[in-house]
Amino acid sequence: MIPNATKEKFEDPQNDSIWILSSTFIIFTMQSGFGLLESGSVTVKNEVNIMMKNAVDVMFGGLTFWMVGYGLGFGDEPGANPFCGWGDFFVHANSSELGWTYSKFFFQSSFATTATTIVSGSMAERTRLDAYIVFSMLNTFIFCIPAHWVWAPGGWLYEMGVIDIAGAGPVHLVGGVTGLVATLMLKPRHGRFTTDKNEQPAMGSPTNAILGMFMLWWGWLGFNCGSTFGISGLKWKLAARSAVTTTLASVAGGIVGTMTSYIFKQRRFDVGYTINGILGSLVGITASCALAKPWEALVIGVCSSLITNGVCELLSKLKIDDPVGCVGTHAASGMFSLLASGFLTEKDELTDAMQLDRIRPGLVYSGDFRQLGIQALAVVSICGWTVVTSVVFLKLIQVTVGLRVSLEEEIIGADIVEHAIGGVFYNKKTRMIESEQASKEEPDIIRHYDQPIATMHRRQSHVYGRRFSTQSGSCKDSLHYQLPVSLSDEVDVSEKNSPLTLLKNIMNWCKTRKNPVLFSPKDYVTPNLPISHDNEIYDLQGNLPYPSIPSCKYVEETNRDNITVTYV
Amino acid sequence: MIPNATKEKFEDPQNDSIWILSSTFIIFTMQSGFGLLESGSVTVKNEVNIMMKNAVDVMFGGLTFWMVGYGLGFGDEPGANPFCGWGDFFVHANSSELGWTYSKFFFQSSFATTATTIVSGSMAERTRLDAYIVFSMLNTFIFCIPAHWVWAPGGWLYEMGVIDIAGAGPVHLVGGVTGLVATLMLKPRHGRFTTDKNEQPAMGSPTNAILGMFMLWWGWLGFNCGSTFGISGLKWKLAARSAVTTTLASVAGGIVGTMTSYIFKQRRFDVGYTINGILGSLVGITASCALAKPWEALVIGVCSSLITNGVCELLSKLKIDDPVGCVGTHAASGMFSLLASGFLTEKDELTDAMQLDRIRPGLVYSGDFRQLGIQALAVVSICGWTVVTSVVFLKLIQVTVGLRVSLEEEIIGADIVEHAIGGVFYNKKTRMIESEQASKEEPDIIRHYDQPIATMHRRQSHVYGRRFSTQSGSCKDSLHYQLPVSLSDEVDVSEKNSPLTLLKNIMNWCKTRKNPVLFSPKDYVTPNLPISHDNEIYDLQGNLPYPSIPSCKYVEETNRDNITVTYV
Amino acid sequence: MIPNATKEKFEDPQNDSIWILSSTFIIFTMQSGFGLLESGSVTVKNEVNIMMKNAVDVMFGGLTFWMVGYGLGFGDEPGANPFCGWGDFFVHANSSELGWTYSKFFFQSSFATTATTIVSGSMAERTRLDAYIVFSMLNTFIFCIPAHWVWAPGGWLYEMGVIDIAGAGPVHLVGGVTGLVATLMLKPRHGRFTTDKNEQPAMGSPTNAILGMFMLWWGWLGFNCGSTFGISGLKWKLAARSAVTTTLASVAGGIVGTMTSYIFKQRRFDVGYTINGILGSLVGITASCALAKPWEALVIGVCSSLITNGVCELLSKLKIDDPVGCVGTHAASGMFSLLASGFLTEKDELTDAMQLDRIRPGLVYSGDFRQLGIQALAVVSICGWTVVTSVVFLKLIQVTVGLRVSLEEEIIGADIVEHAIGGVFYNKKTRMIESEQASKEEPDIIRHYDQPIATMHRRQSHVYGRRFSTQSGSCKDSLHYQLPVSLSDEVDVSEKNSPLTLLKNIMNWCKTRKNPVLFSPKDYVTPNLPISHDNEIYDLQGNLPYPSIPSCKYVEETNRDNITVTYV
Repeated sequence: MIPNATKEKFEDPQNDSIWILSSTFIIFTMQSGFGLLESGSVTVKNEVNIMMKNAVDVMFGGLTFWMVGYGLGFGDEPGANPFCGWGDFFVHANSSELGWTYSKFFFQSSFATTATTIVSGSMAERTRLDAYIVFSMLNTFIFCIPAHWVWAPGGWLYEMGVIDIAGAGPVHLVGGVTGLVATLMLKPRHGRFTTDKNEQPAMGSPTNAILGMFMLWWGWLGFNCGSTFGISGLKWKLAARSAVTTTLASVAGGIVGTMTSYIFKQRRFDVGYTINGILGSLVGITASCALAKPWEALVIGVCSSLITNGVCELLSKLKIDDPVGCVGTHAASGMFSLLASGFLTEKDELTDAMQLDRIRPGLVYSGDFRQLGIQALAVVSICGWTVVTSVVFLKLIQVTVGLRVSLEEEIIGADIVEHAIGGVFYNKKTRMIESEQASKEEPDIIRHYDQPIATMHRRQSHVYGRRFSTQSGSCKDSLHYQLPVSLSDEVDVSEKNSPLTLLKNIMNWCKTRKNPVLFSPKDYVTPNLPISHDNEIYDLQGNLPYPSIPSCKYVEETNRDNITVTYV
Repeated sequence: MIPNATKEKFEDPQNDSIWILSSTFIIFTMQSGFGLLESGSVTVKNEVNIMMKNAVDVMFGGLTFWMVGYGLGFGDEPGANPFCGWGDFFVHANSSELGWTYSKFFFQSSFATTATTIVSGSMAERTRLDAYIVFSMLNTFIFCIPAHWVWAPGGWLYEMGVIDIAGAGPVHLVGGVTGLVATLMLKPRHGRFTTDKNEQPAMGSPTNAILGMFMLWWGWLGFNCGSTFGISGLKWKLAARSAVTTTLASVAGGIVGTMTSYIFKQRRFDVGYTINGILGSLVGITASCALAKPWEALVIGVCSSLITNGVCELLSKLKIDDPVGCVGTHAASGMFSLLASGFLTEKDELTDAMQLDRIRPGLVYSGDFRQLGIQALAVVSICGWTVVTSVVFLKLIQVTVGLRVSLEEEIIGADIVEHAIGGVFYNKKTRMIESEQASKEEPDIIRHYDQPIATMHRRQSHVYGRRFSTQSGSCKDSLHYQLPVSLSDEVDVSEKNSPLTLLKNIMNWCKTRKNPVLFSPKDYVTPNLPISHDNEIYDLQGNLPYPSIPSCKYVEETNRDNITVTYV
Repeated sequence: MIPNATKEKFEDPQNDSIWILSSTFIIFTMQSGFGLLESGSVTVKNEVNIMMKNAVDVMFGGLTFWMVGYGLGFGDEPGANPFCGWGDFFVHANSSELGWTYSKFFFQSSFATTATTIVSGSMAERTRLDAYIVFSMLNTFIFCIPAHWVWAPGGWLYEMGVIDIAGAGPVHLVGGVTGLVATLMLKPRHGRFTTDKNEQPAMGSPTNAILGMFMLWWGWLGFNCGSTFGISGLKWKLAARSAVTTTLASVAGGIVGTMTSYIFKQRRFDVGYTINGILGSLVGITASCALAKPWEALVIGVCSSLITNGVCELLSKLKIDDPVGCVGTHAASGMFSLLASGFLTEKDELTDAMQLDRIRPGLVYSGDFRQLGIQALAVVSICGWTVVTSVVFLKLIQVTVGLRVSLEEEIIGADIVEHAIGGVFYNKKTRMIESEQASKEEPDIIRHYDQPIATMHRRQSHVYGRRFSTQSGSCKDSLHYQLPVSLSDEVDVSEKNSPLTLLKNIMNWCKTRKNPVLFSPKDYVTPNLPISHDNEIYDLQGNLPYPSIPSCKYVEETNRDNITVTYV
């Protein structure tokens, strides 16, 4: 928020509190925006789980922010120092103080939970929900220290005059870098980098993803404009300027993202490029939203959009798996946002009137490197802090709770494993999918494995590949598998095994091999399904069925024999 | 709203009206929140219908609220008395009065339509839309009298000093109790309680349900904060306190809901538990949102969450069918909310300054039972009023319009029956599903029955079980039924009957049996479908296909013969 | 906006800027509302594309509005005249001016982009995205000139005292008329008017359409209330009046729309009628929202609802294809809105205090035709301007970029063609659907054609008819076609052709026929699919497959032979 907002309390409490509270209402809609964007971007078997993650991080992160986060970030009791605040733990105020304290806590809690929710994107599709809950409680700590540095009077970056109006550092850079650390520790999703082009798996619901982007877009207006933390005095002008710069940056970023796709992707309008272009430029304008000129906003938007989409492509090349582009959007553009403020900021009557007097003009206007140096220092220190703390916290979770789901659970998808979507659930002991409603007297494998999945499919709003399928020929159910000869020699593919056991046998065998790449694409084990839109590929290279590989019928000209395992 | 808000008009009209109008914009988003939550929670064959119900209750309920509701609730012309208001019917004001009157009417109409829309959840999946429209017009009356008691100067509970800042009584308790009455009169959905565990049918779209919850969450901030009915004077502090208590209560409630599921449901994170936990705690904090301390909000959130999920489980045990948890969330937690205010409220400078002087400190702080007594009186009187009026109104609708759809229509689903989704419609005279676009020259049964359903399926955003299916073997269409011998002896299963006729024959026969439970699960009549995700079970016990029963292939070891009826 | 708002700058900058900025936040949610409404209303193969169109028009239209639109609309430098403004191009202001300028630019840009986004509905399902981008840049110009006439001091309609508070003319009439021109130039969608009843194809996702309607509904409150452009002085009363009239008009319009459907459509509640009723009445109240009395709002709502649904039916009869009812809603009700202000407006203390002194009382109150005449003049001049400019611009695009996609691309759907949804894309050179992820070493036709579509289907949130399908009999893939003899004599149906080639052959042959109606419905070429919900009809009349025709199995009693083309 605007630094001086923390120096003095409200000049005009009514006006300022309306502004803060209304902006925060709008900012909270960003939680659903992130939820929908991520839910629409991941594969359908995890779409509910990622929405849940965006809900739980508000709850668990909100609790720890109330307990210690606000105090460490903004407490101004004795003990507060340039590194962290002190006091105001378990936020509570008496009637004379509560107007200011509660408004600020309410506003800041929306920032804190946003910083956490950013990370959920990069951890999508393979993180245990219980681990994520623990993480969202700890993440408060990662956020609140840089927030103190940048926004609290006495914070060391604040006193140096760093420019960060709406959280490019404490929110986006922290969130994005934590996301990068998390995805590096988690490793890529199962089968993410097995094709030549390293394409992301297709979005589960592009419509939901775009709706989520719209929600973030309007929420960001509240985020950036609300960061004036009031409207009294001349702050309303800063809010109006924030509205215009935020809009123009996103306009420029969106256009550039769209055109980038059009130019580099054979005249195609890739949905992801446009979304990343818009969101990247919204991050880009965050640091200087209340200070930039319209044309500066356009320049920032253009650059952020290129940076965001470029970093996303680069990560893909580096085989770093970032399911919804969190690192490119928040880390890279957050970094750029802080640096851009060191280049472009100019002082005018508004900055003076607002006692933003610690700010120096940017390099472009003054030829003076000082502000840019301070911004660079902020980038380096925030990155350093975030890397260290997030590695420690995530490692701690990894060795205690465990971060990543098992391969089997990842294949089945978190919607079934964690939430029993569709009335079926994955029994972690038996490792079988079971049905709540199934009559207990009839524990037959068909019911317990195959049928519940089928049931689930029609309950959910999406149809996705049934992992195994039955073919009815003359009213008999059968399941066909084609295995390469070399594999079927070594794996127990007897007819009495359930499909899941069969898959487990195959996988276990794969794990015993030294060379992880055993088979060419022709060697896929694929259920020979009568209905082509229902099959899904099980690639045996390491450990995977990979949803976005186009389902591949067995190719007759293969020089290996194909065995058909029929499971009745 | 804050009681004194009705005593005097605006101190600072600009600030107060900004606040009221902006809050109401936010509150209106709750209509879409309720719509999505309910639409995502019910089975897919009713998902559009329930959205429509949430739209029509705004319209029809809004009209009667303008006509008489506002007058009976808040009219202060001669004739107003402790029981009801008088005047201001067909709300209209001249230019000097309209600022205050219209703001208040606009704000209160958002409350009134919320009270109605709550009920739609408990009536889901089996209520006629025309009956619901009539109900939503009458429901205004059920709401506006308690609203007068609690909020209008002169209302008898108001004068006694009842605490209900944001509508725990007139909105949530009224809505929830009406919902309970409605579901008891409607009886459970077809086949809801046929399995051992009484599980709810799986949500049609958990993603939509969670998105709806998010919308309600942010809408509730407007609801509770806006209930200060202004921001002038010290009211802005009460708004800030409402924001913090509402957030913290929902944080606590969500955490408890999530952990409850994790602990009691074998480490599973049930989506419904989290949603009910959050919404229940939001109801719980409603009465005292502007008065509670942060830790009190946490306590209230914890208790409300437990109460809500507990009552939902209890109703399920009692075989009371509440499709989206409306009774647990709104009735139980609304009741708790009113009572909690009698325990926990403390007076401070803000309550004094706000002329909330009729309020007495709660039992915990004073040892005085008076405020608790008043709150309990409010609970009892509002419950009593609601039960009596809702029974009368619903009975009236039942004997005139009719409340519940026919069994056939319930099986087909309201989306087809009421709205002709997918270009097919259910002809109430012929009782056949027909297609608008079908050429009239070819009235063949395949086209009229089977094909339109197929057509519809790909139009809708969801695939759900085709009720009947054709199997193509050698390019011939056939339909297979397996009936237990005992049944096929008595029912006309000749090949010339259409599938629908066949089903009707079976059902009619079932109704003639004294003993409603005739068959074990093995005796299901199930179309022997080639594609397993497309079949749906017809349980012959009473009269039902129940969507959430996992589709069950006929079991070969059954000791009864199976007959295959082939319909070409 | 309220005319005098442009005369003087802010009286009370804090209050007014809070109001303007918050309203604009709410107005921006209308973009997602339009996106969802349109996405849910079109067929599923275009649902992502139309969301993207609603995103890009904000970006590209926003850029040109910043560059020249605001200047031509509201610039007040020398050169401004009654026809257009001048100055303020590339909007930029110094610190003393920026509060006012930026607030107004931000607010007006939300209006400008709304005017564009309205048009996207009528162009749905057959417009090239690159052409639409160019159009959205040019459309700024179509909007900003009438905006100057009506709202800018000095504008010729402004000076005559035209009443248009919230943009019935410059936003809705301009958008709706442009939409009419566009749909006439584009011609109807493929196969839209081939059935007897001219029914719209079924909505792809009615749930999303209703959610979009809700978003527009609440957004409209911001739109109409925000048009007071401030809350200081007595403007807050006008805002409160806008809130009430907007609500009541929509209540009346929704009720009438719902009842119209119930009465005229055999007791069915058509979703489209309710949506059009609500949105039409919201447009209807736009011009006079801050001036009307409650009962006038009801009358306006009733009439607008009837007009909107009537015009939609009329267009359908006239075989003008308006996919989401844009012309009925925005053009017809926008026109009515302007005229209704000439009938019903009455002057009171508020209009006087607000210096709305150029306004004359309406015909009903004064018997004076003058105001009605001015309103009619506004309608005629705005329509004339819009028709001329939009014809010129669209023609320009048509002859350069090209407006309409090819038949093949329309059949495949814009989601695949423009956005490569599901990892497959349409190669415009080879005219084949290809897969990104397909291994390049195996260019087999099955993979390139059939499989990617199958893959795509399970990626998308919807299942729609596979255009071609394979049937697995004894593990062999085959594709069956039934062609009427008369056709198969003339078209190359040899087995070596791919399905797409086959379809192209058939189509090309159709185009060579003079008589466009060659076949009765019995002669449909239909893939003989084993799964009935998966087939789709290819009508050979002109140019075909039309999604909403119920899929029609071949009828055995046809007197023509049927040929089965088997493609392995």
